[in-house]
Amino acid sequence: MIVRFQAGAAEEVVQEVRERLERAGLRVMRSLEPSRPILALAGKLERSLAKELAAHEAIERVDSPPVPDVLLVARGMRELHSVVDVGGVRVGGRGVVVIAGPCSVEGREAVLDVARAVRSAGAHILRGGAFKPRTNPYAFQGFGVEGLRQLKDAGEAVGLPVVSEIMDAADVPAFLEHDIDCLQIGARNMQNFSLLKAVARVNRPVLLKRGLAATVEEWLSAAEYLASGGCEQVMLCERGIRTFEKATRNTLDLTILPLLREWTHLPILVDPAHACGIARLIPALSRASIAAGADGVAVEVHLDPSTARSDGPQALLPGEFASLVADTRVLSGVLGRNLHPAPRAAPGRA
Amino acid sequence: MIVRFQAGAAEEVVQEVRERLERAGLRVMRSLEPSRPILALAGKLERSLAKELAAHEAIERVDSPPVPDVLLVARGMRELHSVVDVGGVRVGGRGVVVIAGPCSVEGREAVLDVARAVRSAGAHILRGGAFKPRTNPYAFQGFGVEGLRQLKDAGEAVGLPVVSEIMDAADVPAFLEHDIDCLQIGARNMQNFSLLKAVARVNRPVLLKRGLAATVEEWLSAAEYLASGGCEQVMLCERGIRTFEKATRNTLDLTILPLLREWTHLPILVDPAHACGIARLIPALSRASIAAGADGVAVEVHLDPSTARSDGPQALLPGEFASLVADTRVLSGVLGRNLHPAPRAAPGRA
Amino acid sequence: MIVRFQAGAAEEVVQEVRERLERAGLRVMRSLEPSRPILALAGKLERSLAKELAAHEAIERVDSPPVPDVLLVARGMRELHSVVDVGGVRVGGRGVVVIAGPCSVEGREAVLDVARAVRSAGAHILRGGAFKPRTNPYAFQGFGVEGLRQLKDAGEAVGLPVVSEIMDAADVPAFLEHDIDCLQIGARNMQNFSLLKAVARVNRPVLLKRGLAATVEEWLSAAEYLASGGCEQVMLCERGIRTFEKATRNTLDLTILPLLREWTHLPILVDPAHACGIARLIPALSRASIAAGADGVAVEVHLDPSTARSDGPQALLPGEFASLVADTRVLSGVLGRNLHPAPRAAPGRA
Amino acid sequence: MIVRFQAGAAEEVVQEVRERLERAGLRVMRSLEPSRPILALAGKLERSLAKELAAHEAIERVDSPPVPDVLLVARGMRELHSVVDVGGVRVGGRGVVVIAGPCSVEGREAVLDVARAVRSAGAHILRGGAFKPRTNPYAFQGFGVEGLRQLKDAGEAVGLPVVSEIMDAADVPAFLEHDIDCLQIGARNMQNFSLLKAVARVNRPVLLKRGLAATVEEWLSAAEYLASGGCEQVMLCERGIRTFEKATRNTLDLTILPLLREWTHLPILVDPAHACGIARLIPALSRASIAAGADGVAVEVHLDPSTARSDGPQALLPGEFASLVADTRVLSGVLGRNLHPAPRAAPGRA
Repeated sequence: MIVRFQAGAAEEVVQEVRERLERAGLRVMRSLEPSRPILALAGKLERSLAKELAAHEAIERVDSPPVPDVLLVARGMRELHSVVDVGGVRVGGRGVVVIAGPCSVEGREAVLDVARAVRSAGAHILRGGAFKPRTNPYAFQGFGVEGLRQLKDAGEAVGLPVVSEIMDAADVPAFLEHDIDCLQIGARNMQNFSLLKAVARVNRPVLLKRGLAATVEEWLSAAEYLASGGCEQVMLCERGIRTFEKATRNTLDLTILPLLREWTHLPILVDPAHACGIARLIPALSRASIAAGADGVAVEVHLDPSTARSDGPQALLPGEFASLVADTRVLSGVLGRNLHPAPRAAPGRA
Repeated sequence: MIVRFQAGAAEEVVQEVRERLERAGLRVMRSLEPSRPILALAGKLERSLAKELAAHEAIERVDSPPVPDVLLVARGMRELHSVVDVGGVRVGGRGVVVIAGPCSVEGREAVLDVARAVRSAGAHILRGGAFKPRTNPYAFQGFGVEGLRQLKDAGEAVGLPVVSEIMDAADVPAFLEHDIDCLQIGARNMQNFSLLKAVARVNRPVLLKRGLAATVEEWLSAAEYLASGGCEQVMLCERGIRTFEKATRNTLDLTILPLLREWTHLPILVDPAHACGIARLIPALSRASIAAGADGVAVEVHLDPSTARSDGPQALLPGEFASLVADTRVLSGVLGRNLHPAPRAAPGRA
Repeated sequence: MIVRFQAGAAEEVVQEVRERLERAGLRVMRSLEPSRPILALAGKLERSLAKELAAHEAIERVDSPPVPDVLLVARGMRELHSVVDVGGVRVGGRGVVVIAGPCSVEGREAVLDVARAVRSAGAHILRGGAFKPRTNPYAFQGFGVEGLRQLKDAGEAVGLPVVSEIMDAADVPAFLEHDIDCLQIGARNMQNFSLLKAVARVNRPVLLKRGLAATVEEWLSAAEYLASGGCEQVMLCERGIRTFEKATRNTLDLTILPLLREWTHLPILVDPAHACGIARLIPALSRASIAAGADGVAVEVHLDPSTARSDGPQALLPGEFASLVADTRVLSGVLGRNLHPAPRAAPGRA
Repeated sequence: MIVRFQAGAAEEVVQEVRERLERAGLRVMRSLEPSRPILALAGKLERSLAKELAAHEAIERVDSPPVPDVLLVARGMRELHSVVDVGGVRVGGRGVVVIAGPCSVEGREAVLDVARAVRSAGAHILRGGAFKPRTNPYAFQGFGVEGLRQLKDAGEAVGLPVVSEIMDAADVPAFLEHDIDCLQIGARNMQNFSLLKAVARVNRPVLLKRGLAATVEEWLSAAEYLASGGCEQVMLCERGIRTFEKATRNTLDLTILPLLREWTHLPILVDPAHACGIARLIPALSRASIAAGADGVAVEVHLDPSTARSDGPQALLPGEFASLVADTRVLSGVLGRNLHPAPRAAPGRA
């Protein structure tokens, strides 16, 4: 349940209610909302206590969240949608962001080349995989920690914050050491609860991809694992769900975008590339994502997709990517949003 | 296979090739394309004959269509995407159309009221169900032929062509008698091959909805049933597929829109209402559909959704619909398309 | 709602209650159950009237059916599971039946050869398609009425009742004229409501296949269309649902078999061949179907599957089919059921 | 590719071929098969080298496995299906095993009570969750290491080996320390590649559940991660896939069982409880699983399901479980298999 106090409710009254609830065996959490107190209650609220809360004069209302026990990330926990700061780039709110980079970090020069290309085309955040979740055990598994270093160096060289996927709780220190601005939890690990708990503790921005067969309820529950574990900077990323249709790799689920807006205050991004698996389709799907209300898109760019060590068929060429950014800018404009200005370049470097 | 002749190939050469192929046991069909001869071959083309065609000097090239035996509706059978004329409204090509009206025709006055509302908001085609496919045998099954009459009268009164669903081959004469401008084949009947054959014979515009679990291949094959049966005016309509996700009624599959553009020359519409089942989500999904490249959207409008005899929760109010049309106009503009002007009103009536 | 009277409730009391309910605007239907009166109510039962019924001394209890408005085929409408008589073969009850024959009727001699083979191996009902629902419009569409004639003649020659798929309401007279013992509604037509209504009226045994993406609720609602339209002899046939898994053609859903037993009194058959699409897997899946509680299985047999005009890869050879019947016999035995004796041969014919 | 040598091929010839292949850049792995040499090759085999192998006189044949790069667990790598020894219980081969126990270990006494009940009813392996993957972050997460201890103690007390789910690579030492006989990888972690690699290294028996939306190819690839990482004792466990059908929690996919038999030599178990989520349906689904060819079933038993801390609705009572074991015994018999004798009790303890 979500207990929304009157604006200006006295802090001692809030504290009193909180203690009353904790004595009743509930787990009580406080919203980050500054404008008024809001409490989230996990556990079973007895009917008599619920009535008591409803009648309390300092409490405006008590609501069930749309998904049971999805509390901290529920829309009702904030007055406005939340904004996550990824190395200076604000995700959520009015602006629209574009994340781009290679599927896999494939070497110091290679990632730097892509970084320059996407930076100059207008990307805001550089992506690149160092630890790669591969179905086939004999396939390229990524450069690991060395890949993190190369990605971060490329990001710094062009003045972009970076995001990379983490697959193992044991790698958290390496992500911190290399100052990766945003940790991505991939689709296959969306319900790797040990990983969620470990990542939550370091309170870095997290990009949480939707599982291939995850319901909205499960996805938001995974976000709640992060939030309740200490992470205040969660972003969701829709990337296609598994359906019977095999003409495209997956089916991009834009249907749930406007619903997510009502259910959660978290920023929502879309990765159209993993959804379709075909580079030619990505521009149209990016436009559709922005039009459906996404806070941004994440795509893969490669200077020579035919030689990519993973996911080449869905990588855009730099020129295609530049068009996509231009489309995004125009669409954002007519939708009453704006494309973020590119982040300020690192002085004397880019 | 699709045999594309050189522009200006002599008619007698085409005829000669055609006879050669028919003697080999193939079914040969001619494209409607005026600029050059194109033939479609159904059946197994022997390798030696294939080589012979490839080497023929009047033939530019011989291609396999993306979907086996989907020929007449394949992209390669036309130079341009096709345009279907629905009672004076051109669907496909550069313009974007909006189809609107009640889920069910609920009476003479009711349908006229909705018709006036959607006409004044900018709809191009009036929709309304007279024969309703209902899961529950005890639910309202539509007014039948009387509903067709009311719909057509309303369309004429406000100057809009009309579209309505046909569920039974035996009803074809009634649709003709009441001059229904476009026959809709619903999702549940997409593979009702008897119905497809019967509808094809009358060569009226047909709106072919995608089945709930139909692959793109099956959907295009159903369109091929129409085309090979004599219907030259087929439009496709995506309306959501059945997936594991139940937060929304279905999952709108926009992923296949840009792929369909490559595979077929048919116009492609989107019905976002049946996909999500929740009126609040429709505006965002309509925008996404247009941004993904749809030639138009079809939605349901009701003056008082709470009293609708079917699908009330997904019906828009007239004001909401007017905003949707305005959004569509703006988006069409930035996408280099344009919203169709409303059709010319019947003189002295609307 | 389902109103169950006390055993021995007086007929005039039942009649009185019935009239009371009809005056309240409900559609009231009577169970075929001989042991006690049971009424089904379609429509909204007001709370006060519900209380009145609950308190009525002649009424044992009033239940909501598991699926709203699935009434006549609901388990609660009968004391025992129902048994359908298909030309002398009883389907449902204690016995287990095997239906077999070619996918398509391919000629007088061919169907007779298969009929002899399956009859001698122990089949109880002969199947064969005369009207074939084909995805591809250029594929073999069946021999139509001539196929019905050949199938029936083969059935009579070997002394087996026959079942064949009907795809069009207009073909009902032909099925009657050729005395087809059981009409099959195929997966693609499960929600072809016009066909369901037309077939229901002739009150022949109907084999209703589950749609490729039909929920149990929709499937039973389709059966309710048949029952409420006048058909008292409906059998269900699970045949695999469409899922993301493509290693097999579909996924046989045996999970819902024991649930169906609780929800409906109708006999339940399984067609493992269309579920997997691979002949080698059929014996194991037939065993699993019987073990899960099916009343029988339906399979395809061909003397030379490589030349079959449809679905060859899933056709069993006669020897394989004979083993399947033997397996079924053994399994039925240990499950406390029995394999039906083969139907009595037509005198002087087989 | 899988290179099968002639029986009796000289070891030095095998070694020579192996070196030849490794020089060509392939990863070469040796089968555990004692009767003849078999090599698995990961990577791209050049055509000329393939021809050379095919012509080699010591080589019987070279095959592509059914799933690319699924090698060590492919059927062709062994002459017979493999048998995994779980604390003295042989899984695979002719016998059928029953795994049972509580969903969660809920305390020392509780797990011991269930252990006694399932032991006396005929279970062969005791299951129980200490680390619980819960969708809801506020739900009971298991007793962790203490749960492992309680489970193992209960297993020893009644003389049954134990299996428990591992969710985090960091917990491997705890599983070893408490001598858990078999490590379960749950559905949500099937593609947690870090966990697969960590578990593989300790070479204990592993029960690998199928992911909710995992294809057979992905599932076998996950098994290949285990095998190529050093684990020679992998068992597969089908537990239901996620489909559109919501009348049951998931859909048990028995369709792929006979196909898996052709594709892999690994033992295959079925967990019908997580597939359906309804205790009443489990007996029928267990029977179906055995009839479809499973090497055993895994179910949950609780003395008072209504008080279970997780998954109560799918837990069997001890009496129901005893009937299930009896059914399994009878079915195994007629299928030419046998139910394993219960493992020898620890002397003086059970």
